[in-house]
Amino acid sequence: MSLLVVGSMAYDGIETPFGKRDRILGGSATYISLTSSYFVKDVNLVGVVGRDFAKEDIELFRGKGVSLDGLQIDETGDTFFYRGKYSFDLNNRESLETSLNVFETFDPVIPELYQKSRYIALGNIKPDLQQRVLDQVENPDFVVMDTMNFWIEGMPAELRTIIGNVDMLVLNDSEARELTGESNLFKAADVIMAMGPKHLVIKKGEHGALLFTGGEIFSAPALPLVDIFDPTGAGDSFLGGFLGWLAYTRNHSTLNMRRAVIFGSVMASFCVEEFGPDRLRNLTNDEIFARYLKFQQLSQIPEIEE
Amino acid sequence: MSLLVVGSMAYDGIETPFGKRDRILGGSATYISLTSSYFVKDVNLVGVVGRDFAKEDIELFRGKGVSLDGLQIDETGDTFFYRGKYSFDLNNRESLETSLNVFETFDPVIPELYQKSRYIALGNIKPDLQQRVLDQVENPDFVVMDTMNFWIEGMPAELRTIIGNVDMLVLNDSEARELTGESNLFKAADVIMAMGPKHLVIKKGEHGALLFTGGEIFSAPALPLVDIFDPTGAGDSFLGGFLGWLAYTRNHSTLNMRRAVIFGSVMASFCVEEFGPDRLRNLTNDEIFARYLKFQQLSQIPEIEE
Repeated sequence: MSLLVVGSMAYDGIETPFGKRDRILGGSATYISLTSSYFVKDVNLVGVVGRDFAKEDIELFRGKGVSLDGLQIDETGDTFFYRGKYSFDLNNRESLETSLNVFETFDPVIPELYQKSRYIALGNIKPDLQQRVLDQVENPDFVVMDTMNFWIEGMPAELRTIIGNVDMLVLNDSEARELTGESNLFKAADVIMAMGPKHLVIKKGEHGALLFTGGEIFSAPALPLVDIFDPTGAGDSFLGGFLGWLAYTRNHSTLNMRRAVIFGSVMASFCVEEFGPDRLRNLTNDEIFARYLKFQQLSQIPEIEE
Repeated sequence: MSLLVVGSMAYDGIETPFGKRDRILGGSATYISLTSSYFVKDVNLVGVVGRDFAKEDIELFRGKGVSLDGLQIDETGDTFFYRGKYSFDLNNRESLETSLNVFETFDPVIPELYQKSRYIALGNIKPDLQQRVLDQVENPDFVVMDTMNFWIEGMPAELRTIIGNVDMLVLNDSEARELTGESNLFKAADVIMAMGPKHLVIKKGEHGALLFTGGEIFSAPALPLVDIFDPTGAGDSFLGGFLGWLAYTRNHSTLNMRRAVIFGSVMASFCVEEFGPDRLRNLTNDEIFARYLKFQQLSQIPEIEE
């Protein structure tokens, strides 16, 4: 089933307590398309890169079958560059450099071939650009969006509009609290659902994730990862794994949404094991399914036997 | 199966964002014995109260079948009194008054009848007193202990001794980090298990709990409680529910330990619904089992179906 991914393309400079990379492939569209490509063949990427974008990175996407007809190559400047440093416990990231470059004037033009994509992932970009994507696609089956505190604070009206037009919002716990002004996550979820989306995921980092759907709550665990190497891209990998599974199965039942949340968590758990998207280059289906079983074993509550 | 509970008996003054009580029954032994009494008939309580201890509170324990042969009534002073105020989000508690009274000189003398108790709950008291309890009992089947940051900081050597002599330690995430100096909970768990206990529970409040046993990790969810009325006693109720189920079933398999963690979580979830131990006065077995099912539904990960 066709899956459209719109988001940022970037090079990142990353420093974690475990090491440093001066320049590694990044951006929300990168992580979402790589992870979803393990579930569906027809992944369509829309984004912009600059004249410095490496041929080997193009080949990485091609090798995963990701269609690049919507990838704009802007020869007037360089690719979006971001540099950040994680704190000792990886819970905070200090931004050291943000050069938007060609991303500053990004206009997501959806090629005609992509306009009938059935599943849409709106990566974390300006909310009005997310809306521009929706204006160009034809009645998709399922639209999921990400956002961040920067837009919650800076473009609240535009953000409300797009939230009201998607099937599902994915955000982390602090963003959910900031968006709603509610400290209790379950109250925050009620407020967000009242804005329009039928489904909601609140990610809690090392504490897992909560899925709100069909009046039901699903609490997904986080895998015990002793060594988280680099958290960059974990949220986008979650989104790619989630929507990839949903697009592959075309089943939006609450049970299957739970599976999608676990496949999202699986892809996020792989992502953080190496720098940038390195761990996502060569996964196997066996590895992915084996990790799904690990999540099951981790949280399985036995029947009562007296 | 006989279950011995040793801990504090107190009156608490509690203020939460939802209301205030000037004087309500409290103390770790109170919560542990009330909650475990729903699982086993033979609960033996050891603690000390003062001349002010109310007859109706004695009757509450008697009504639940809790044996009070080990309850010392010290007519020379009043019962331990504690007063505290919870923050808006209930995550912090400010201590406003701590009058140890007769608890200051508490010496846990275990009556002969109790010395053969098979299951032992060492509530949060001085670590050397916890050891004194162990010195008086005969080869119990399972000993679980609680502790707190006050003893981690103030009596580290005594705490290490008792931790090395119990089957299981229950503590919360910040205590686990403080005890070990490890910020990663899975590394902290390894350090604690190396101190002696075969089983460990790390409680994470609104994020559930982790059980480490038999080389396996179990991640238990927390129930979505929109209105937590009063968190006082939640940790002790967890301990009582856990050990109550274990003593009732006499099955220490990893599967049954998972059930015990959920029954602990069930009792903690009831505890916080009303002030002090009020919600624990009149629970039914149906309510308890129904809530166990809620935990199962909340975290159940479906089999993969493509």
